[in-house]
Parts: sequence; C-alpha cells; structure tokens
Amino acid sequence: MKNIINIQPKISIVGAGPGDPELLTIKALKAIESADVILYDALVTEDILALASPGVKFLFVGKRAGGRYTRQEKINLLMVQHAFSHGHVVRLKGGDPFIFGRGHEEVVAAREAEIPVNVVPGVSSSIGLSALQQVPLTRRGINESFWVLTGTTRTGNLSNDVLIAARSTATVVILMGIRKLKQITDAFKAAGQLNTPVMIVQNGSRPEEKIVLGTVATIVKQAKLENIGTPGIIIIGEVVSLHPQFALSIGVNQLKKAS
Amino acid sequence: MKNIINIQPKISIVGAGPGDPELLTIKALKAIESADVILYDALVTEDILALASPGVKFLFVGKRAGGRYTRQEKINLLMVQHAFSHGHVVRLKGGDPFIFGRGHEEVVAAREAEIPVNVVPGVSSSIGLSALQQVPLTRRGINESFWVLTGTTRTGNLSNDVLIAARSTATVVILMGIRKLKQITDAFKAAGQLNTPVMIVQNGSRPEEKIVLGTVATIVKQAKLENIGTPGIIIIGEVVSLHPQFALSIGVNQLKKAS
Repeated sequence: MKNIINIQPKISIVGAGPGDPELLTIKALKAIESADVILYDALVTEDILALASPGVKFLFVGKRAGGRYTRQEKINLLMVQHAFSHGHVVRLKGGDPFIFGRGHEEVVAAREAEIPVNVVPGVSSSIGLSALQQVPLTRRGINESFWVLTGTTRTGNLSNDVLIAARSTATVVILMGIRKLKQITDAFKAAGQLNTPVMIVQNGSRPEEKIVLGTVATIVKQAKLENIGTPGIIIIGEVVSLHPQFALSIGVNQLKKAS
Repeated sequence: MKNIINIQPKISIVGAGPGDPELLTIKALKAIESADVILYDALVTEDILALASPGVKFLFVGKRAGGRYTRQEKINLLMVQHAFSHGHVVRLKGGDPFIFGRGHEEVVAAREAEIPVNVVPGVSSSIGLSALQQVPLTRRGINESFWVLTGTTRTGNLSNDVLIAARSTATVVILMGIRKLKQITDAFKAAGQLNTPVMIVQNGSRPEEKIVLGTVATIVKQAKLENIGTPGIIIIGEVVSLHPQFALSIGVNQLKKAS
C-alpha cells in the first residue's frame, strides 16, 4: 500500500483490442503494467489481465453471466475513488475504448473530478477482425466505404441506421448485433440484398474463434447450425466473397474456422 | 547474407498505426523485429523503422515528394522476389493495412506465389485519432454509427458515398480527403448541414500533429489559415462538439493542438 500522501491520481481509458494479447498496443501494455487498479469488462481476456504487475487490484465491472451490467455511474465512481486511494487506474475495455464503449462518459467523469485522464486507442474489432480473416472492408472496383453500426441501441430496438445502411453500397459492420441477426437480415432482404455475402466472427482473434460465411438469405440458419453466440461481429457486403473459403462455404453451408 | 538453401519465404502485411511507435501492436513490433526486408510507405515514420533489427534491407515504395506512387504490380513483385531471396518480408503500411491500403491485393500476390502470408491489423487513423482527441465517434443520445470513406477514388472524383453520407446521421470520417475539402463541405452544405461540427487532424499522434476545429461552413477557411496539408483525416458530425476545445475554437476560429 502506498503512502496516501504520495498518491498521484491518474486515469487511463485503454483499449485492449479484440482478445489476442499480441494485438494490444505497446502503449496499452505499458498502461496495464503501470496500473495500480484495473477496472475491466467481460470482453477483456485473462491472458491480458495476466500482464498486470503483482499487487494490482482487479475490479470486474462488466456484465455477469445472466446478470446485469454494472451501472455507468457506479463504474465512474469506482474509477474516481480508486484513483484517489490507489493512484493509476486503468479502465480496460475490449477493442477501442471510444467505439460504442461509453469511454467518453468515463473521460468526462475523470475531468469533473479533476483527475488527469488519457485515452489509449486499441485495435477495434470492427476493423481488425476482418483484416485477420484477410477480408478487406473496401476493395477497388467493389466499393469505397464501410459503415460501422451497433445492433444494440439504448431503446433495445434495431437502429434506423441499419435500414439506411442496407440500401447503401458501403460494407456494413455491426457490433453487438448477434442477438438481432434475424431483424438485421430482414432489413437487408427488404432492400433486395438476398445474395449479399455475410461473415460472422465470434470470439475473433481468440483460441475459441469461430467464423461463419454465408449470404443474407442463408446466414440465420447457418449461425443457428453453428451455435453462434456473443461476442461477435457481423460483416455484410460483396467484399466478404474475397474470403479464401467463401466459395467453399457457400457449397457446404458451414465453416468452422479459417486456416 | 543467409544461405539461400535455408531461406523460408514468408510475407507479413503489417499495420503500423497512425505514427506514434507506441501505437504499434505487440504483434506488429515482433514482425518488424524479425523482418529481413521491410517495404514501407510514406506514412510509416522513421521512429518505427528504427525498431527493425540491424542488417534489415529497407525499400521505400510510397509516393516520392512531387512524384508518383510506386505501381502496385511493382510492389507485389518486389515483395515476392525478396521473400524468395531474403526470407521474411514485412510490408509495412500506415494505419491498418486493410483500410484503403490495397493490402488485400498484396495478400493475393503472396498466395499466387505460394508464399505463406499473414495480416497484422493496426490502429486505423479512422478510429484511433479521434480517440486520442477524446472525441467519441458515436455517443448515446447523439448518434449510433460512423461511416468511413476515402476522399480519393480510383477515378479522382469525389465518391458518391460522400453525398449519401452527408444525408445520414452517421459521424462521417474521411481519409485521404484533405485535397477535396471544399467539394466535401459543399456536399454537406447541400444537405443543409452548415453548422455541423468538423475536426481535421493532420499528422495525428506524431510530434507535428495539428488539429483544426470548426463547422461545415467555416472549416475550409480555417484549414487554409492553419496551412493544413496531408496526411490528414476529416471528421464531420455532432460528436466533434464534445472536443474539450470546441467551444473555444468556434470563438477564436482557430486552434493549434489539443493540450
């Protein structure tokens, strides 16, 4: 325990990337190694937590299995209190901390408590997981943009943006959308995109990674057959056909994992 | 020089992140350290190249000042030839190698030459630079998605996607668009978005970083006053107003760098 007189409160909002510890940035690793307290989510893997220094205090603030999320106000309070009592608090979040992660609300809480705060970007699943599958989100001659959405909105309804995105030429990347897969594919069907390729990556970059390749018309059935669950991302667009095993998967209608 | 008999050809397509060497992933650092040859772009900083092992062969394949890009076919050929003659070739690209980077074309070239190839994702400027500025690309109560586009298309014209994006509620992130700033803001003006906040980040995460905060109506003039050039990204959306210095910048119409 440090002498309370010498404590310098500091908060780092840090992205842990998609799961593989080697996809941490050097800056994120340094923050983890210098942390006195780590507040982490369900998406942060044990391999990453194992990189912390001995004596660090871990606080889990994610969703318990079958339970509720820790309220954001509670997380903010724990973060600020521990910065004053312990020193360097690392708020460790899956992917990039500012992509659908409420990281900004945590920055504001730190500022309001007049605690120095910095943000360490991370490899976002929205971009990194398709690169690992060797699928580019855009490709010359196919399309020129990608659109990243969340499947889970404040109200619990499907975001209206999904309906608009289904009518665009952008590759559509949906985070936290696995539980709304049917509604999402319905929006793409309504836009006449039945044959557009779809890829789902569950637990991307982790040992238990699982992928499914299909089309808007087939993916719901395939995901069910493969027992796909959370966490996962959904990528919808012609570029998915560039996956080395896409042609094969359309034949056999299922695929475990890219080699 | 290795004995040619012992050479194991291998190609890694690696993202170098936005510029700060600490924003490299651990996996990217390991690839750089184990490279026999590094083919790099103009966006890769000297600080990052300095991390390579002694004796590595460096080949610059980016755009020379005032000159032309190295043709993609030429890059593919250099990559394959050096894998056979030297062993591990690292193709090092700014940001994430699969975001508007033609990384996929390089993967295909490696596959065609039957050389093992892997992709190492990087922190993309499209996501990481706004996080460093403590600006979230989405925020509860403001919007629910972001759309990433390139300002530079194959034909040299402004992508039609920019016109559609200007009418969406998505935060719009445009890479390689600095030279088309006027055309881009014209598209947003035509969509009635005169007062929508805009942030430009030039040389993001590097010592020479420069940012400008304004609105669709004011940003062209401000960028000119601040002498903004490439490389830079443009972020357009209400979320930009969350930048700690936004209110101030609207008053003074210019801002050097976030503190």
